[in-house]
Amino acid sequence: MFFASDNTAPCPPEVLAALAAANDGYARGYGADPLTARATEMLREVLNAPQAVVHLVATGTAANALSLASFCPPWGAVFCHTHAHIAEDECGAPEFFTHGAKLVHVGGAHGRMAPAALAHALANTGESGVHGVQRGMVSLTNVTEAGTVYSAAETTALATLAKAKGLPVHLDGARFANAVVATGATPAALTAQAGVDVLSFGGTKNGLMGVEAVVIFAPDKGWEFELRRKRAGHLVSKSRYLAAQMVAMLEQGRWLAWAAQANAMAALLAEGLAARGISLGHPVDANILFPHWEPGTSARLRAAGAQFYDAPAPEGREGARLVTSWATTEADVAGFLAAL
Amino acid sequence: MFFASDNTAPCPPEVLAALAAANDGYARGYGADPLTARATEMLREVLNAPQAVVHLVATGTAANALSLASFCPPWGAVFCHTHAHIAEDECGAPEFFTHGAKLVHVGGAHGRMAPAALAHALANTGESGVHGVQRGMVSLTNVTEAGTVYSAAETTALATLAKAKGLPVHLDGARFANAVVATGATPAALTAQAGVDVLSFGGTKNGLMGVEAVVIFAPDKGWEFELRRKRAGHLVSKSRYLAAQMVAMLEQGRWLAWAAQANAMAALLAEGLAARGISLGHPVDANILFPHWEPGTSARLRAAGAQFYDAPAPEGREGARLVTSWATTEADVAGFLAAL
Amino acid sequence: MFFASDNTAPCPPEVLAALAAANDGYARGYGADPLTARATEMLREVLNAPQAVVHLVATGTAANALSLASFCPPWGAVFCHTHAHIAEDECGAPEFFTHGAKLVHVGGAHGRMAPAALAHALANTGESGVHGVQRGMVSLTNVTEAGTVYSAAETTALATLAKAKGLPVHLDGARFANAVVATGATPAALTAQAGVDVLSFGGTKNGLMGVEAVVIFAPDKGWEFELRRKRAGHLVSKSRYLAAQMVAMLEQGRWLAWAAQANAMAALLAEGLAARGISLGHPVDANILFPHWEPGTSARLRAAGAQFYDAPAPEGREGARLVTSWATTEADVAGFLAAL
Amino acid sequence: MFFASDNTAPCPPEVLAALAAANDGYARGYGADPLTARATEMLREVLNAPQAVVHLVATGTAANALSLASFCPPWGAVFCHTHAHIAEDECGAPEFFTHGAKLVHVGGAHGRMAPAALAHALANTGESGVHGVQRGMVSLTNVTEAGTVYSAAETTALATLAKAKGLPVHLDGARFANAVVATGATPAALTAQAGVDVLSFGGTKNGLMGVEAVVIFAPDKGWEFELRRKRAGHLVSKSRYLAAQMVAMLEQGRWLAWAAQANAMAALLAEGLAARGISLGHPVDANILFPHWEPGTSARLRAAGAQFYDAPAPEGREGARLVTSWATTEADVAGFLAAL
Repeated sequence: MFFASDNTAPCPPEVLAALAAANDGYARGYGADPLTARATEMLREVLNAPQAVVHLVATGTAANALSLASFCPPWGAVFCHTHAHIAEDECGAPEFFTHGAKLVHVGGAHGRMAPAALAHALANTGESGVHGVQRGMVSLTNVTEAGTVYSAAETTALATLAKAKGLPVHLDGARFANAVVATGATPAALTAQAGVDVLSFGGTKNGLMGVEAVVIFAPDKGWEFELRRKRAGHLVSKSRYLAAQMVAMLEQGRWLAWAAQANAMAALLAEGLAARGISLGHPVDANILFPHWEPGTSARLRAAGAQFYDAPAPEGREGARLVTSWATTEADVAGFLAAL
Repeated sequence: MFFASDNTAPCPPEVLAALAAANDGYARGYGADPLTARATEMLREVLNAPQAVVHLVATGTAANALSLASFCPPWGAVFCHTHAHIAEDECGAPEFFTHGAKLVHVGGAHGRMAPAALAHALANTGESGVHGVQRGMVSLTNVTEAGTVYSAAETTALATLAKAKGLPVHLDGARFANAVVATGATPAALTAQAGVDVLSFGGTKNGLMGVEAVVIFAPDKGWEFELRRKRAGHLVSKSRYLAAQMVAMLEQGRWLAWAAQANAMAALLAEGLAARGISLGHPVDANILFPHWEPGTSARLRAAGAQFYDAPAPEGREGARLVTSWATTEADVAGFLAAL
Repeated sequence: MFFASDNTAPCPPEVLAALAAANDGYARGYGADPLTARATEMLREVLNAPQAVVHLVATGTAANALSLASFCPPWGAVFCHTHAHIAEDECGAPEFFTHGAKLVHVGGAHGRMAPAALAHALANTGESGVHGVQRGMVSLTNVTEAGTVYSAAETTALATLAKAKGLPVHLDGARFANAVVATGATPAALTAQAGVDVLSFGGTKNGLMGVEAVVIFAPDKGWEFELRRKRAGHLVSKSRYLAAQMVAMLEQGRWLAWAAQANAMAALLAEGLAARGISLGHPVDANILFPHWEPGTSARLRAAGAQFYDAPAPEGREGARLVTSWATTEADVAGFLAAL
Repeated sequence: MFFASDNTAPCPPEVLAALAAANDGYARGYGADPLTARATEMLREVLNAPQAVVHLVATGTAANALSLASFCPPWGAVFCHTHAHIAEDECGAPEFFTHGAKLVHVGGAHGRMAPAALAHALANTGESGVHGVQRGMVSLTNVTEAGTVYSAAETTALATLAKAKGLPVHLDGARFANAVVATGATPAALTAQAGVDVLSFGGTKNGLMGVEAVVIFAPDKGWEFELRRKRAGHLVSKSRYLAAQMVAMLEQGRWLAWAAQANAMAALLAEGLAARGISLGHPVDANILFPHWEPGTSARLRAAGAQFYDAPAPEGREGARLVTSWATTEADVAGFLAAL
């Protein structure tokens, strides 16, 4: 009954097997090994982006912050949702890596930027000449921090607003696999075809030990990205061990299978909560749930062995955040609902 | 015959076994797991520093740059050897993390700072009031980039010069295990007892997939370090997988055994080179050799399957850099010497 | 009829006279001259802060950004009003000088932070451990960008909220003289006695060519400030020419006389507008007015020679911003009202 | 007998007169006034660069650091003389403004980069791929810190080495007028025609209160420069007062007349020193002298009222640095020599 985060679960056995297989003999360092090349090739195929530049890093914060820094100048504004991971959960990494860009918060229900709010923010930034920060880029998140998703059309609509101002678009896809499963869209339809210029493609929350890929659809930014990555201490010498995990996840469509399991378990949990009359703070599109239950419930569940985080709730209710993963089983869900 | 770098070798089987063992069930993220606590405890024991703050990161560049940033202000000078890793091989990571501190290069034969040169640099920096950068900190490297070591007394002598100016001391110990083996000194004698305030304790070059520890002997810097680490994208969520490797390396003295094998193979190689009348650019204290041989030799060796990097050499000679690792065998050495 | 800004007016003749007087013979550079010492002494007297550190700079943006950087770490949050100058009119200077601190916008009517809003922001920042930015400092503005003022009691109330969280307080006093005149409070009551730790004391908008003073009530920050100022290119070599202006402004209470004239002319203008039934967006506490008049009025006034900026207005009205200065005369006001 | 620095002298009366004349009525802020336009136009004429972008700032450090930041990325190396002002006298401003670029010191006698040393540094930087900093730009100084000058041909030779590596060239011209007088070259021949891309055109050391111009010969960098200047707090609101000084200096060739007086007085002083058998550390090309005299001489001269700084000297001698300015008279020189 571990619903604290998708990063508390163990890794699928295929990941361990891949590491063991990769640990055979000598390999060139810093990404010049065959496994890194293979991971690059597979990501290009998955995203239908044969020209894309692909680089591996160990954390999602690094993937996001390096992506932003490569596309947004220090005097630029990054438009993101008020509760985006880059806004709330990275201790200012975007500001550090960009040398001081300003995050402009855009509202919208359920973790999704409202197009009108983005349009308003875009219209009202950079209008005072040299005195204010300039429009820099737009950063979306899919799956959002509220556990909801953007469809391909919704992504395109937001990206189109960005493009109308000449801005590049970043997508924080720490849970991108879950978004692909949830929307049924192709990976390409949610990214390059929608107008995304740079993608943080998550592996860690989907089952890897700590591997994310940055996919840059504008290849001319590749070398700058490499320099920024090295300079930030995010170029690993033994790249094969990151790449092996990424390859294992992409092979045989495992990345979608793992995400599908997480999403399915969340849906099952949502169903059980609904059956018990428990309302949710946000729609359950993917693998995160925000139940609002009777005060005291959280303590009771924890006493029964459940693990999860508190979350805000309306007056008179108690809020929690539940996250499922590839490792969540029907038994876990059943046990949790029983304890409830 | 792989002598290109100690980061091209595979990992010892114990590392893989430790990862597999760690992959059992759920664990709290961001370092709040038992394995991370165990790694911390073991490092404190190894270094005889029960109060030390310990944090894991994935790369040596991150370990170094975060260490410098936590102790040196943006207007400070970092005194380091001209050929230190932080000066030549990190693409300006120290400048990035410190927000623009200045590296002051200190000379000295065989990769070792000459005490007189350090004293001179310390005396001539920060003497023009507000107009020049201020003295910030001293950064040593042991094993040096030239493959030589500092004894405990030599470390103490340099650190004493720093302390006389009120400066903290950093030790880049990417190959610290090799230095401990080579000097026969205790880990404590080479660090806190010598005056080192913060240590980059290497794991990657000694056999791990990508794990370094930063050991801060001045515990009041701990929280600032944590914020800087998070902000730099170097706080990993699934810390157990870093910690498991570190624990495996420290258990049963493996870290010293692995380094001892690397050092022994380097000594064997040095002996063979000497027997063939091949001179070396630097003394072989640890696991790196810089032979100067007849022009054409490198091509011949590579044709025979040897891997290594070129290095500078005197007029009329050809230079190479050979690095041994835990994985180097006597057969590797014999094969290389035979090809020679 | 020049109401565009208090920085478009000429300087009072005393300023020119002071420069001419200062231009006599040789003087030591970088602030080691007698006039700079005199300016420091006078500011300490004016602010009743005999221990304060005082430094001159040429622009308000420099004064603000250097003040913030000296008190707030890169991972800190600066709490300021949504429409503060540091938030909207400095092109990210605070982020540049602090190396990426985050401005947290606090709402409140008429340009004034609402205490409840500040309390809420303080309570909701820095509560997620290492994952989010930490509470850094509070920055107030008096006179606010809306032309309103904080009384000594209001300043104290906000500073008290900051102090309760252990935070230092900055006051952007680009129009501090106008605030002193408007509130009738002593300079000390609006600053150190209220809990302000560092003050940007404005000279430029009050009639100088380009001189601001940073007054640091916590003397131990003085040296760091000096290093930051030099490093930012804001240590001027011929400091006597800045100091001479500051001294001329402070002598004989001219700084308050000039501000009083500006405030009085604004009051006169406000009276005239009220008499004509024109409403104002904000109370006219000092020297800035935000009239909302009939559409078309602005064009008509400009055709008559008036200069001013547009400003937002409610549906069906037209907004303008009028700023008076030491140089505004009753004739200017009368002329403007006549054109109206 | 004030030879401490050219920034301790008063300003020529024309500067005061120009300020008084500029102080007439209202003027638009932030450089949108006619005087700023006039200064721009005059600098373009002087430099024979009709397309150049011109911006005024208050200090030489700001001019230099903003110039570097606009042309060199954070991971770039700035090649400059070991004793350049940017290397020794700006407390790391270049590193601050560039977000951490690395200054690579290039040697050469008498403050002048030796072409061979620059070629060597250029050849040995940026050759290790992503691991080391990249070649960024070259920064020359004319008049150098040693008081020597580069001829147009020497400037061209160094700039040609930079261009061969695709690098932009900065010229720190804090004493550019003195260099023009000393070389007899046209301003254009020492800058754009020689390959200089951005020039810090000094006014302060030549007699202004605190005004420098940045002249960017590559106009596409203009907007970025403006954003960086604003963000650094170096956009002054009352630009007319900077511009008035610059115009006064450029009108009627005064800038060269003032510099010619300074140079002539230095030559006279050099002659007098030579007649007394006092050797000099560097050739006296412009307005700075480095005499090496008998120990005890400095104290004696100071007792007689002379002001100057100490400087290094060979064993057994005592060193001093003497700087002349527009205000130095023949009587000053005669008095100094008499005291000697």
